[in-house]
Amino acid sequence: MKIKCAKADLLTGIGIVLKAVPAKTTMPILDCILLKAVNGQIALVGNDMELGIETVVRGDIIEEGIIALNAKNFSDIVRKLPDNDVTIETDASLNTKINCEKTKFNISAKEGSEFPGLPQIEKSKKVTMSQFTLRSIIVQTVFSISDNENVKVMTGELFEIKGNKMRAVALDGHRIAVRNIELKEDFGNYKVIVPGKALNEISKILSGETEDEVNIYFSDKNIMFELEDTVILSRLIEGEYYKIDQMLSSDFETKITVNKRELFNSIDRATLLIKESDKKPVVIETSDQILNLRMNTQIGTLDDEINIEKEGKDIVIGFNPKFIIEALRVIDDENIDIYLVNSKSPCFIRDSAENYIYLILPVNIVA
Amino acid sequence: MKIKCAKADLLTGIGIVLKAVPAKTTMPILDCILLKAVNGQIALVGNDMELGIETVVRGDIIEEGIIALNAKNFSDIVRKLPDNDVTIETDASLNTKINCEKTKFNISAKEGSEFPGLPQIEKSKKVTMSQFTLRSIIVQTVFSISDNENVKVMTGELFEIKGNKMRAVALDGHRIAVRNIELKEDFGNYKVIVPGKALNEISKILSGETEDEVNIYFSDKNIMFELEDTVILSRLIEGEYYKIDQMLSSDFETKITVNKRELFNSIDRATLLIKESDKKPVVIETSDQILNLRMNTQIGTLDDEINIEKEGKDIVIGFNPKFIIEALRVIDDENIDIYLVNSKSPCFIRDSAENYIYLILPVNIVA
Repeated sequence: MKIKCAKADLLTGIGIVLKAVPAKTTMPILDCILLKAVNGQIALVGNDMELGIETVVRGDIIEEGIIALNAKNFSDIVRKLPDNDVTIETDASLNTKINCEKTKFNISAKEGSEFPGLPQIEKSKKVTMSQFTLRSIIVQTVFSISDNENVKVMTGELFEIKGNKMRAVALDGHRIAVRNIELKEDFGNYKVIVPGKALNEISKILSGETEDEVNIYFSDKNIMFELEDTVILSRLIEGEYYKIDQMLSSDFETKITVNKRELFNSIDRATLLIKESDKKPVVIETSDQILNLRMNTQIGTLDDEINIEKEGKDIVIGFNPKFIIEALRVIDDENIDIYLVNSKSPCFIRDSAENYIYLILPVNIVA
Repeated sequence: MKIKCAKADLLTGIGIVLKAVPAKTTMPILDCILLKAVNGQIALVGNDMELGIETVVRGDIIEEGIIALNAKNFSDIVRKLPDNDVTIETDASLNTKINCEKTKFNISAKEGSEFPGLPQIEKSKKVTMSQFTLRSIIVQTVFSISDNENVKVMTGELFEIKGNKMRAVALDGHRIAVRNIELKEDFGNYKVIVPGKALNEISKILSGETEDEVNIYFSDKNIMFELEDTVILSRLIEGEYYKIDQMLSSDFETKITVNKRELFNSIDRATLLIKESDKKPVVIETSDQILNLRMNTQIGTLDDEINIEKEGKDIVIGFNPKFIIEALRVIDDENIDIYLVNSKSPCFIRDSAENYIYLILPVNIVA
């Protein structure tokens, strides 16, 4: 195999597929990036057997071939090369020269055939949206998944497509994050659970531009995200997802409208009084158009006040501050609405169109 | 005690004295920052018993007093306050209110009298230079100290003042870093060994401006750095420093002039082939006006070439790449001169005026 690419293109490609290279693995071949120069196209592949990424790199193929290179060494070497054309050449004994200007590296490769191929997906079941939208959906929900591997479906996120509507749901038993979006056309009905870890990596690859599209394909076991030069494949999580519609019922006794930044800063201050071992709730108490926020831990106390708009009766309620902080962090709105019933019932942070809904269970507080 | 300061001023002061608060200590009072509001002046103090820092903070004293506050909690709280005036008020039971706008923190303080005072230094033995110069001296030498606490003098840096000349020396048994500077006037003769850790922290506090001055005072046991609003005290290391003049003899057989950035990049590439356990030298070989640089490890090989200007005979020599990299990183010159004798003798990287001299011992290589 012999190819030539610009260093910058090669480095971009490596950066993308590295997201599927496992940090730890019992299969040494998965520590590698597969380098394919076949059918006139240069592609890089990373695969941790849950998530697989293949990306095309512009360049010239002088001699076709497929090899696997240790991902860390390969990426370290390319990153430190001069900013110019890079030639990669592997001989029959898998000695691999990586040359750029007067710099000549030599490392050994592995047989490309040892590297596990990505699953094939038939492109019949498809949904299309902008990369910006998909990234927003993921970023605004994925923090609410659980990392408890014993309840597998909670480590994933529900993607539910009904005609021209899509709903993404993540929950961990203490909170639920929901994003509703409208699709450009009717794509049919699908319901899959995508691993949260994969979605986290995918969100970093998506461009964030509204004009860049992503095609999403489904099979029974896998989901594929197709970008311009990159395809990302993830296994799906098997099982039945939770029925959440009833939990999202929208009765309320109190509605609070508050500046998001002020509430965020205030709760952020409260969290600095918490040591890891010491799970104290932040207590929120309304008194007419003022929200009083209190925290009381071994380190000390905080008493804070924010001006709000309030409809309905006053309330006292306690929360794990982390859950509120994480929801506020991903909401773009300047002012948010919080809907409450009583000190034992979940609160809802949602916009009027229900583009986003964050349900958070309260923590028992001693009045 | 009751004081009022702008948040920004308080935070700057905390940032300075935090550099003397130990990460770990068996004396809980040292985890604190001392807050002194006496004689019309507000000051903060940090002290790890080796390094002590006191800095003045602008503000109003409503009631004088001295208290000690846990450094981490105090700095976390102030950092997250709104950007406005902060009031700190401690009652007789050491309950301390930290208030800003509508935000009210309450933490408990410790008695200020428990906090160990900084040593007093008579201001008779003095040297003055710009903060820029002192910072350069430290940054350009301190990386060459040893972290081996068994040879205490090697963990410090020699400050040697002779009339209007000052020399700073750091060495670790494999290399020596020397900086020579000219002082504005004749300050007398002093020779002290300053702990390297203290110098590292001090370099972060120095302003880096040539018009800001620092007065340095000496006693038998301590050194004091006096800035505009801050004094920094460090213990001195006792003992006799190494005599290095003979080692700095300047005979050479080969002189190489090379672009610093090119040599740095090339050695930096070589280091990525090194695993921690695998201490391989980088081999440098001159061939007329070309420097060939080679590395050969378990990971692979590197072969690199740089154009140089050379006087004298060709040479092959091996080095621990880290020692060259660390010297090159702190040299400001675009081109550097390297002086060599043979493959067993130290190399010197120095400018013609000997403002800086880096002596590096070679590593044995199998030819």
